[in-house]
Amino acid sequence: MALPKPHGPEGKLKPLLLYGNERQAEIKKAQELPKVFMSSRETSDTLMLGIGAFTPLNGFMKKEDYKQCVHNLKLVDGTMWPMPVTLSITEQEKQSIGLQEGMEVALIDRASDEIYGTMKVEDIYTYDKEVECKEVFKTTDTEGHPGVSKVFNQGDYNIGGSIKVLNEGKYPEKYPKYYLYPETARKLFEEKGWSNVVAFQTRNPMHRSHEYLVKFALESGFADGAFIHAIVGALKKGDIPGETRVKCYEALAENYFPRESISVGVYPMEMRYGGPREALLHAVFRQNWGCSYLIVGRDHAGCGDYYGAFDAQTIFDELWDGALELRPMKIAWTFYCNKCESMASQRTCPHDGEGDRVVVSGTKFRRIMNEGGEVPDKFSRPEVLEILRDYYKTAEKVEIKKGAFEDMPSTKK
Amino acid sequence: MALPKPHGPEGKLKPLLLYGNERQAEIKKAQELPKVFMSSRETSDTLMLGIGAFTPLNGFMKKEDYKQCVHNLKLVDGTMWPMPVTLSITEQEKQSIGLQEGMEVALIDRASDEIYGTMKVEDIYTYDKEVECKEVFKTTDTEGHPGVSKVFNQGDYNIGGSIKVLNEGKYPEKYPKYYLYPETARKLFEEKGWSNVVAFQTRNPMHRSHEYLVKFALESGFADGAFIHAIVGALKKGDIPGETRVKCYEALAENYFPRESISVGVYPMEMRYGGPREALLHAVFRQNWGCSYLIVGRDHAGCGDYYGAFDAQTIFDELWDGALELRPMKIAWTFYCNKCESMASQRTCPHDGEGDRVVVSGTKFRRIMNEGGEVPDKFSRPEVLEILRDYYKTAEKVEIKKGAFEDMPSTKK
Repeated sequence: MALPKPHGPEGKLKPLLLYGNERQAEIKKAQELPKVFMSSRETSDTLMLGIGAFTPLNGFMKKEDYKQCVHNLKLVDGTMWPMPVTLSITEQEKQSIGLQEGMEVALIDRASDEIYGTMKVEDIYTYDKEVECKEVFKTTDTEGHPGVSKVFNQGDYNIGGSIKVLNEGKYPEKYPKYYLYPETARKLFEEKGWSNVVAFQTRNPMHRSHEYLVKFALESGFADGAFIHAIVGALKKGDIPGETRVKCYEALAENYFPRESISVGVYPMEMRYGGPREALLHAVFRQNWGCSYLIVGRDHAGCGDYYGAFDAQTIFDELWDGALELRPMKIAWTFYCNKCESMASQRTCPHDGEGDRVVVSGTKFRRIMNEGGEVPDKFSRPEVLEILRDYYKTAEKVEIKKGAFEDMPSTKK
Repeated sequence: MALPKPHGPEGKLKPLLLYGNERQAEIKKAQELPKVFMSSRETSDTLMLGIGAFTPLNGFMKKEDYKQCVHNLKLVDGTMWPMPVTLSITEQEKQSIGLQEGMEVALIDRASDEIYGTMKVEDIYTYDKEVECKEVFKTTDTEGHPGVSKVFNQGDYNIGGSIKVLNEGKYPEKYPKYYLYPETARKLFEEKGWSNVVAFQTRNPMHRSHEYLVKFALESGFADGAFIHAIVGALKKGDIPGETRVKCYEALAENYFPRESISVGVYPMEMRYGGPREALLHAVFRQNWGCSYLIVGRDHAGCGDYYGAFDAQTIFDELWDGALELRPMKIAWTFYCNKCESMASQRTCPHDGEGDRVVVSGTKFRRIMNEGGEVPDKFSRPEVLEILRDYYKTAEKVEIKKGAFEDMPSTKK
């Protein structure tokens, strides 16, 4: 048994990062090139391309790949690809640098003004933001949907072409133990003797229900190792920062998992909150990270009430044969049940009386923590709660918007 | 999605039971035929053949199928088949009825003297009991191994040929709700909308660790329904009778599973205690029953210390491509962990200190019940324990032999 091959026709990782002298030479060259400024999403995609997470992409999408992706979930060569990976530029910026196809440009992170890469501009094209958002996000609500809002804030042109990546930002220093490239993770898994790894995507702290998902994925025997894989790129307001969450994952892994079953990693992407489409993207790059399974739960990668609770599971059924080697583990709504005296879900628990199930939504949990209230028993591990309480003591108070899934039908199916 | 096809090249169930007038006519004819007497194992195999559980077999094995089965896990046509399904006769019996190939005989259950079927004798052959037992049971210990003992008690000839089945014994009346033919179970699963059913084989009452296995099989999402499938043919001394166990399954299903996730059935086979080979047999006929997965745990279908704890899992890896559509769910040793505050296994629990894990082997449990002792907390559900306490009050006291897995290394991995 071996780990699944990286995504794409060649089955080989394609990291775009340069190293050593090659990097230095390219940085020197980049300093003389016209500058294209990147949003935080674009910078985070550059990092993902750099470490090979977006294999087989070799840069930002050209028009034909973009169109196929938006409308048909694939690239021109037929490879499944569910979300645009694009770099935009405004009319004004385009004119100010006299951008033309065939030019080389330096890719600059707008926030930090740092060089992140260079691009050979192969395609400059206009695109329809409304169509993109309707297809990809199923909504054009720029007010409420952070992913849509970002698209509408983009420039009116996309520029496509292969890139070289020259910078990894703060991540390697910030997460020295957990910032694992796909290639490094694969080696780690192989050293552990794992051939079927189940990935758990998370942008939140892990409570007992999340621990339970990972545990039954391991119990089924289809996976021989679990990879807690946390997104640490920019999140939306009110989400808990990566550094705090990593402490939670560590506490959980150390106290509640056998060392030989679990591994923790972080990756630099920025959430698009694209629900079903983003679940597919999560699956694609988890395969690049060597995983055979991705746990896909309720409202995976969603926000607000833009997606049905299980849309991110059913979209996998719409894929064609061979679209993806990784398989989703489609899991139900989990909770502690006082009558079962255990964690459970609607698939395994028949008790739906008042007070049977301990259900606390993420939103409600954040409210309790913000207000210093008591978390219901069995909801979270004490080691994790302690870390979160510490964080909330000093955290900026954020108004918690009522989420679509806050009031779960705990007493009904 | 559809249920997996029945085993064998045709992918169609082959029940050998006759009904109505056809059965009556055959019974009348059988009364005039020479009699071949069957052991309880042979009678139970006749029942399994009757209901189509042993599809694609059309009767007892002829020599070439038998030889291929014993040595190569297959039939002459290449179909995977892991254990002999044979009918034996002694030299004396053979002479007394003047048995010859081409004859028709009546198949009589030795214990009840009832007609169970008729056979067209196509093959009469000697066989090597020692070789059979070495290959199939990995031991020739006639003293300690009940399956081996039965083989050595057989007549020196096997007779092979297609059979017609005319009797279902006491099972349909004894288990009116749960005696489901493979065909009936398939219809039931389809009505429930299940297309991936996980089977749980059991010859014991179900405690929390067994409930846990079934539950995490459901949680993983690969199975949409669970089939508790209990063997109710003759068992070894000290095992709990089917009627009592069925009450336990009912209590568990009713109180701890959602109705839409679970189904209970019984089948008339007799345990051979063949460990790995029998696990494969269990898998073959579960596929006939419409199941996609079989839970294969520690020492599945074993007895004593004849097999390694997980041999019944690894034997599945030795099968060739296409040998079996059903997939084993290979699960670990499960227990309640006081520190995890939940059921767990070595795959998910890091706590191996003194007293962390609540472990009670089947043998130890029987001893406690026999002696009226206290069962550790969290080991079993109160509804199940009550049924078992009632049973043990009146049950014949049996000396419990110390089993190989009685003293589990609860504090070590």
